[in-house]
Amino acid sequence: MAFVMITFTLAATDGAARAGVLETPHGPVETPVFMPVGTQGTVKAMTPEELEAVGARIILGNTYHLHLRPGEAVVERLGGLHRFMNWKGPILTDSGGYQVFSLARLNKVDETGVRFQSHLDGASLTLTPESAVAIQQALGSDVMMCLDHLVAPTADARTLREACALTARWAERCKAMVEKTGARRSGNALFAIVQGGTEQELRRESAEALMETGFDGYAIGGLSVGEESAAMHDTVAFTAPLLPASQPRYLMGAGEPEDLLQAVGAGVDMFDCVLPTRNARNGTLYTRRGKLNIKQARFREDGGPLDPDCACPVCRDYSRGYLSHLFRAGEILSMRLNTYHNLHFFLSLLREARAAILEGRYARFAAAFLADFRGGGDR
Amino acid sequence: MAFVMITFTLAATDGAARAGVLETPHGPVETPVFMPVGTQGTVKAMTPEELEAVGARIILGNTYHLHLRPGEAVVERLGGLHRFMNWKGPILTDSGGYQVFSLARLNKVDETGVRFQSHLDGASLTLTPESAVAIQQALGSDVMMCLDHLVAPTADARTLREACALTARWAERCKAMVEKTGARRSGNALFAIVQGGTEQELRRESAEALMETGFDGYAIGGLSVGEESAAMHDTVAFTAPLLPASQPRYLMGAGEPEDLLQAVGAGVDMFDCVLPTRNARNGTLYTRRGKLNIKQARFREDGGPLDPDCACPVCRDYSRGYLSHLFRAGEILSMRLNTYHNLHFFLSLLREARAAILEGRYARFAAAFLADFRGGGDR
Repeated sequence: MAFVMITFTLAATDGAARAGVLETPHGPVETPVFMPVGTQGTVKAMTPEELEAVGARIILGNTYHLHLRPGEAVVERLGGLHRFMNWKGPILTDSGGYQVFSLARLNKVDETGVRFQSHLDGASLTLTPESAVAIQQALGSDVMMCLDHLVAPTADARTLREACALTARWAERCKAMVEKTGARRSGNALFAIVQGGTEQELRRESAEALMETGFDGYAIGGLSVGEESAAMHDTVAFTAPLLPASQPRYLMGAGEPEDLLQAVGAGVDMFDCVLPTRNARNGTLYTRRGKLNIKQARFREDGGPLDPDCACPVCRDYSRGYLSHLFRAGEILSMRLNTYHNLHFFLSLLREARAAILEGRYARFAAAFLADFRGGGDR
Repeated sequence: MAFVMITFTLAATDGAARAGVLETPHGPVETPVFMPVGTQGTVKAMTPEELEAVGARIILGNTYHLHLRPGEAVVERLGGLHRFMNWKGPILTDSGGYQVFSLARLNKVDETGVRFQSHLDGASLTLTPESAVAIQQALGSDVMMCLDHLVAPTADARTLREACALTARWAERCKAMVEKTGARRSGNALFAIVQGGTEQELRRESAEALMETGFDGYAIGGLSVGEESAAMHDTVAFTAPLLPASQPRYLMGAGEPEDLLQAVGAGVDMFDCVLPTRNARNGTLYTRRGKLNIKQARFREDGGPLDPDCACPVCRDYSRGYLSHLFRAGEILSMRLNTYHNLHFFLSLLREARAAILEGRYARFAAAFLADFRGGGDR
C-alpha cells in the first residue's frame, strides 16, 4: 500500500464556519462532523451497520481502554481495530492522556511520560509519547492524537504553562516517532493538542509551539472538564482562528448542542463526545424542542413519538409509552433505541449545519435551532 | 374484522414427527417451530426487524410480567402488544401460571384462582381463569393459554391428581370466558395445558379431561422444571400421541437441542424456551459441534468465527477473539451478537427439522445432528 496521508479540503466558509472534506484511507468525511465514541472497540449498544445507517462516518476509539483490554497486540493480531470491530470507515484514536487524567490513579508525570494504575486491576503502567503512538499504530488508527499533559483549568498559571510546554515537547517526540516508523505504518495521520486552560496567552503559546513543529491537524483539548460554558465558548472562539486555516480543527469532548453550534461558528470541524450515548442509557433523550427524561411519569401512557420532528426509525416505530416501559424494565432494547435516536440527533445536527454553511445561512440556522431547542423542552 | 380463529394443517408426517402450518390472524407459521421469549414486551437484546431477519415467525409474551408492568390496560391503550412492541407476526401469550409458581411469592391457591405477591414490589395480586383470559385478550394475543395449576413433579400422587383436576376445571372456565367475550375479541385462539408430572396415568387423565372440553390446541406443561432428562423424554413420548392429531401440540419451556429433537420426533409442533437468549447473555453459545463458553481464555486471540458451520452475520463478521473481548468488557453488543447467534441456531435447527420431515428423513437428520453436537463440544 502506498503511503497515504489524510488531506483536508475546504468546500465553503460562512463567516468563520467551515464546510470541508477530510480524505482518509478509509474514505471521505464531510465536516463539520460528530464522531461517536467507541471506547472499548464498540460504540455502546450499536452495531457497525447501525452506525452507518444512522449517519456516522468516522468514530473514535480509546487508546487507554484498548491498551488495557484486550491490549493492542491482540487487536493487531486479529487484523487491527477496523477488522476487529468490523467498522469499515475511518477511526480517530485519542492518546490515552485524558483517561489517565480522569479514570486512572495517576502516580507520576515527568519528562519521560506518565506512570499510572489501571482502573481495571490496579496494574502499574506507563505511557510515553512514543508508546502512545506505537499503540495507535498497532490499532491501525486513521488519525492518531499526540500524548498531551492535561491539568485542571483551575490550576495556577505556572502549572498550566509547564503543562503546555511539556505537551509541546511530547508532541515533537510523537512526530519523530511517526517519521521513524511511518514507512511501515501507512495511513496514520497525527494531530497535536492545544492546551492552556482558559488563558488566552497560554492557548496562543501552545498553538504556536505545536504549529512550529507542524502536524496534520490540531485539537483544542483541556475543555469541557467542568469550567463555565461561557469560558469554554470564549476559549474556543479565541483559539480556533489561531490554527492553520487549511487544516482540520477538532474540539475534544464537548457535546451539548449549544457548544457544538458555537464551535462550528468559530471554525471547528470535528467533535466527539459521550453525551448522546451515555445520556441515552440514562434515559435523557434529545429532541428538537429540548431534552426530555423518559423516566418521567407523564410518558407512561403517551402514544406519541419520542420527537415528532424526527425522522429516525425509533420515532417512526415506537411510542414514548413503550420507550418509558423499556427503560423502567431495564431492557437492553431501551439502551439500543435511545442510543440510536440520540446519535441520529447529533449526526443530523452537524449534517444540517454543514448544509447551512454551504448555503451561507449558518448564523440563521444556528439561531433558529437553538430557539427551538431552548424554548420547547417542556412540551 | 371477521371472527378469525387459527387453523392448523398437516403438510407431512414422518414416523410420529409432523410438519404443519399454523394459520393465525398475523400470518402463517410453519411447524415445528421455536418461539423466542419476549418476557417484558421485547425479546431481550433484539429488535423486531432482527427477529424477522433471524427467522422468528411467532414469539411468546408473558402475561405475568406484562400484567405487573406496564399493565395490560396501558398496552391496550397503546394499541395492543403487537403495536406496542412493533412486532407484526403472531404472538402466543402464556397464562401467568408458571411465573406465579416460579417467580412470585405464592400465597394461596383455591378453586377461585391464585393469590400471590408481585416479585417487583410485593403487591398482593390475584389471577383467576377469567382474569388470565381477560389480560391476554387485552394484550391482543393470537394464541392464549389457559391458567393452569403447576406443582413440582416430585409432589405426591394425590397433590398431582388434584392439580390436574383443578387445571381442567380452570380450563373450562377459560373456555367459557372466551365464548362469552369472543364476539368482540376476534382472533384469539385458546390452548389448554396437560399436567400430571411424570405419571403416565395422570397425564392420560389430564389430556382426556381437557379434550372433552375441547380447545384449539394442547400444551404439555409442568416439564423442564428440574426432573431427569429421561423422565421428561418419556413423558413427552407418552403424552404427545394422546393429543388430537389434527391440532397443534406445544411443549412448554423445554429448550436443549436434544429435548427439542426428541419432542419433534414424538409429534410436538411448538416450543418456547429462554435458554438461547439467557445463555447468550451468560456467554454460553451454541455451535453445531456443541456448546462453548466464550469466557474461556482460549478464545481471547482466536481469529476464527464463533461457529465455522454457521451462516449467520455474527459468524460472518466477527471473530471469537472479538466476542471474547466484548463479553469481558461487559458491552451491550456482546449480549446482542450472542443472542442473535443463539436464536439463529435454534430457529435453524427447527427449520431444518421441518425440511427433514417433509423429505421423510427426520430420524437420520436428528441422529446426525446430535452426533455432531455431542461429539464436538471441545474443538
